[in-house]
Parts: sequence; structure tokens; C-alpha cells
Amino acid sequence: MDIHKGRLLSNRYSVLYETGFDTTFTTEREAYVLILQNKKIIITNALYRGESHTGDSQLHVCARGEKACEAIGRFCAENTITTLEFEATDLHWNEVHELKKRGIELSPRFDISFNRIVKTEEELFAIKQACHIGDQVLRDITPYIYPGQTEKEIAWYIEKSIREGYQAELAFDPIVAVDKNSALPHYHTKRGEGKIQDGSLLLIDFGVRAHNYCSDITRMIGIGAVSDEIRNTYVHLLDAQIKTVAAVKTTVELKELDIFCRAEMQKNNLPNYEHSTGHGVGLELHESPRVSGISVDKKMSHQVFTIEPGVYFPDKWGMRIEDTIMVSDQGEAEVLTRFSKDLLLL
Amino acid sequence: MDIHKGRLLSNRYSVLYETGFDTTFTTEREAYVLILQNKKIIITNALYRGESHTGDSQLHVCARGEKACEAIGRFCAENTITTLEFEATDLHWNEVHELKKRGIELSPRFDISFNRIVKTEEELFAIKQACHIGDQVLRDITPYIYPGQTEKEIAWYIEKSIREGYQAELAFDPIVAVDKNSALPHYHTKRGEGKIQDGSLLLIDFGVRAHNYCSDITRMIGIGAVSDEIRNTYVHLLDAQIKTVAAVKTTVELKELDIFCRAEMQKNNLPNYEHSTGHGVGLELHESPRVSGISVDKKMSHQVFTIEPGVYFPDKWGMRIEDTIMVSDQGEAEVLTRFSKDLLLL
Repeated sequence: MDIHKGRLLSNRYSVLYETGFDTTFTTEREAYVLILQNKKIIITNALYRGESHTGDSQLHVCARGEKACEAIGRFCAENTITTLEFEATDLHWNEVHELKKRGIELSPRFDISFNRIVKTEEELFAIKQACHIGDQVLRDITPYIYPGQTEKEIAWYIEKSIREGYQAELAFDPIVAVDKNSALPHYHTKRGEGKIQDGSLLLIDFGVRAHNYCSDITRMIGIGAVSDEIRNTYVHLLDAQIKTVAAVKTTVELKELDIFCRAEMQKNNLPNYEHSTGHGVGLELHESPRVSGISVDKKMSHQVFTIEPGVYFPDKWGMRIEDTIMVSDQGEAEVLTRFSKDLLLL
Repeated sequence: MDIHKGRLLSNRYSVLYETGFDTTFTTEREAYVLILQNKKIIITNALYRGESHTGDSQLHVCARGEKACEAIGRFCAENTITTLEFEATDLHWNEVHELKKRGIELSPRFDISFNRIVKTEEELFAIKQACHIGDQVLRDITPYIYPGQTEKEIAWYIEKSIREGYQAELAFDPIVAVDKNSALPHYHTKRGEGKIQDGSLLLIDFGVRAHNYCSDITRMIGIGAVSDEIRNTYVHLLDAQIKTVAAVKTTVELKELDIFCRAEMQKNNLPNYEHSTGHGVGLELHESPRVSGISVDKKMSHQVFTIEPGVYFPDKWGMRIEDTIMVSDQGEAEVLTRFSKDLLLL
């Protein structure tokens, strides 16, 4: 790397990845990491004085009145850095503006956190643990599901099980969606009013965050007298999902998986779904690599991503089957979410 | 407004405010609102098809492969809009870049959601309810606090009380900090290991989200034999906090409150604190107006903000007293968080 070039990371998970430094508010900018030749400088506010970080990074707490971009500018000048690569999808317009005002040349990068796309052994361990907890939570809560219950109640069981039972966290608010709500891929359970009835189809999509790393799983449950249409559709969806997982082995570019999965579903006359076939999982619930028709990511060992085709009949019902998988040393999919994929009939 | 000028809102709370449209993932970009002469267009992805929004807005779901900025560009062209004002602190570099590529002139604004700074009657009602729930939660949980308990356990009681007891949500992860942890203003309870002992000083800082609106409160609790130093410091801090709340009446610019509060504390030889004296509260936990030494905001009736001075002795203990207040029609502070501000001694 050009010795006059540095990197500026702003995404809170990039900061966490590079320095172990974690901030409190997920939706606010509270820290940056400036990566120079031989040092990493965490730039944050006084509220984080004394916060822990890795030994190869140093903490700079902005004085009252000192703006973060002033500190960044000063560190660049002191280290004869004239150009900063930055995360183009993360830095805000005003931040770019403030840095330019200080004479820093800015070079947008879309792959600046590229090393996050392949996981280390430790990262894989954390993700496996998150997946394992998710499996256990499904075992724990399914015996309590019965007609009359609301989606909200089941979501709260899931959350309590994760937090009280396993001292882990939610990766996101669980999506628990019954009947016509299950046809909305991003259904918002907390705002909904759905209730389980005899014959209901129930979609449960949730993730665990353990040691900062996420899992993601979706399973379907039928309550009582589930229609043949649902059962038959499920068989075909599961078949496509399993074949797509198997297809990882021979995949070079991840967009092939997206194309393959949709083609498999079309063979059985299942409708197309409007979301991606999958997404990378790690410190962020949705991160690189992308598993969609427009993905430019290649398959690599130790990537972790989901495979989650779905069938949606608006105003009727929907179903999705989602696994979190890792790519093994041999380039095959190893499924990390192991709760049975059969349609669970209660 | 120039008929060739539109506004683009991207902050998820701005989108919610303008259109009632809510998205699932707080840390991801899932929607924009384009405000043209006589219409508001919500631009989002297919996963939100059928999601609710106000009658004066319309929903545009991007087709697969259609980028949001393509849709924005097309709507601008169709409506002869050449310039878009945008939220400069929210839009990312790549979004600005994509819009510019489509020939749209962009005009950064820092006050684009300016009307959010003064609350309507309905908004005030929701905030009052959130504050009221917070007061009740403190009454509910304080009888259960005893030596041997961990910070995490108390944080979980607070959350369960809010969610199970009042069907409301957390505004943020509660900060429950004991003894030396209380000296860290943004202490991260979930990562900590603190435990209450006889003589402990306990800081509880939490907020409720009810009907989308936040509250924010901090109270201090002494367990058993609390030192005279703590009691005396508390009296002076409380005095400064109460006087600052009263000073709202005669305040013109909000930075005066920040200066006034620090001066009051200095009179009693209390150390200065490194955070602001307060922040606006609404759909976002931290929003305009700012109550800091560099605030440019003027006091206006029906603003809602916190007043929260603190005293921090690193590695020893810290204390903060925080109320959420609204500015009344007469320009005075009406304190919305009504749980007693005396040092609660258990």
C-alpha cells in the first residue's frame, strides 16, 4: 500500500472487527478507525474513555469541542497521509464534506472490509454456537405452541429463551407470522395482531447473536389440520432448498446459486420470490457475500451465508426455509442450523 | 418552494414521521421518501409490499433489479424536479454518487426534518405516556433490588417490566451501572460484570418507547451504608439539575442551559462532565434540539429534551440525574419524568 494512503473505517462492525472496540448505540456514529502504516487509531468521544480494545489499536478520545474529523485530519497530517480510502456505503455526505474541507483526498471503496467476507476459525466457532443456540431454542419453544396464541407471545418466548436460557442476544426481532402474515417476507411481528388457529401455517424466522456473531434460521410449523396444498408446496420448496445447499459444492460464483434455486422451483411451478436467495452472516446479520442474481461475489472456503428460498401467496400464506451454512475447506456447504427441516406438524 | 425542487428523506424516523411507514431493520437502509410538489412517494423494496402508510403518501415498490436511486431519478424526471434537498447527516456517499450519476442536483440540508424539533399534541401525548411508563417501571422494580444482584439482572427486570407489564418497548438497552461502572457515562451493561454490594451506588438510565416515541430517565439508588461523600455530592448535583430545569423559563438559546448548569456545579466544586447537558427526545432517542455548549437551537414551546448533568470520578463512582422535559406554552419546563429525584436509599 502507498505509504501516503490510509484507510478510514466507520461501520460499527468494521470498527469492532478491526479493534474489538464496541459502541452502545447501533444507529448512531460513535467511533471511527483510522488505519495508518503501522497503527490503528480508534477515534471516539469522551463517553468511551477507558473502553476496551485490542492491543494493536490505540484509543483517541476527542476533547470537548474537537470534532472527530479534526482528529482524523490531524492524525493524517502527522503521518503524512494524503489519501484515505473509506467505506462508500457507510460514510455520510457531511462526513465526506468535513474531511475534504481538511484537505484529505478521499477514495471510495466498496470492499474495504473485504477480509470480513471470509471467517477465521474463531469467528466460525462463534457463528456455530449462535446456530446451535437457535436450534436449541426451537426445541425449547415448540412444545408450547398451541391454537389461540399470538405471534407476539411466541416471539417473546423465543427472545426469553435466547436471553434467559442461553445468555445470548437476538440478532434481530423475531419474525413470527401466521397464515396471511407469513406471505409478507419482512412481516413486523411487533406491530401485528396474528393469532394461531387450527389449520394455521406458522413461519418462524429468527437469529441469535452470540459472542457478537449472528445466526439466521427460518422454519415452518403446521398447526393441526394443515391443507394438502401447503404440504405439497412445502415438499417442493424443501427439495429446492436442499438441492441449492448441495449445489454450493460445484458453485464458482454465488449468483449461480440464486439462478439455480429459482430454476429448481420453477420446475415445480412454484412462484418466484422477490428477495435474494441468501446473504452473508457474521458480525452483521446481512453482510457480504451476497447470494443474489446480481451478486459479484465468488464462493470461498469459510464464507458463511444463508440459503432461504420462499413461496408467497399474498393474502393467503407464505413459507420460507432458511439455513445458515458455511463453506468447508473442500468448498462444500456445511449446514450450521440443524433443527429438522421437515414441516413440523403440531 | 421552487417547483423544480424536491426533498429526499432517508432517515428511517424522518420516513416514519412523514408517512407512517416503518421498516424492520433499524441499521439498514430500507426506504426513502421523495417529497414533490403535491405528493410523497415512499420508495422501498418488494419485501414491504402492502405495508401501511398515511393516506397522503404513496408506496413505490422497486422491481427486482431496479435500484432505489433509479426510481428516485425517474420520479424526478416525470415531475420536472432537477434539484433534491437531502439529509446531509444521513445519506451515504454512494447514494449521493448514484443520484448525481442520474443528473440530479443535490442540495445538502441539516434542518430538513426541522418540523420534528417541535412536537404536536399527539406526539407529546405519546412521549408523556412513555415517561409515565418509565416512572411506573421504576416503582415496579425498585422493591426487588438487593445486594448480590448483578447489573444485568436489573436491566432484564426493567426490560421485562416494560415489555410484559406495559406492552411497550425499550428506547435503548438500559444502562445499569454500579460503583466504578457508574463513572462511565455510556457503560455497556450487557458486557459488564458488576454486582450490587452493601454501600453500592447504583445508576439506572433507561428509556421507554411507546407508540414509536421515546422517554429517557436516569435515577440513582444507594444500597445500605452509602458514604457521606456520595450523599453530599448528590445534594449539590440535584440542586444544579433542578435549577437548570427552572432556568428553561428564561432561556432563549439552549446553549445557555448547558453553560448555566456547568456554572452551578462549579459553584459547589463539582467536576465538569464530558457529555452534553441534554438532547432532544422524540422518534429518536437523540435528536434535535441539542442542549450543549455548541448548540445553535433556540428554545421553543413543545420541544422535548433532557436535562442530565452528571458527576464522574473515574475508577470510583459516578452519578447523573436525568429528566425528560417539555417546553410548555408559556416557555417553562414541564418535567415529564416524575419518579422522585431524591437519592433512593434501599
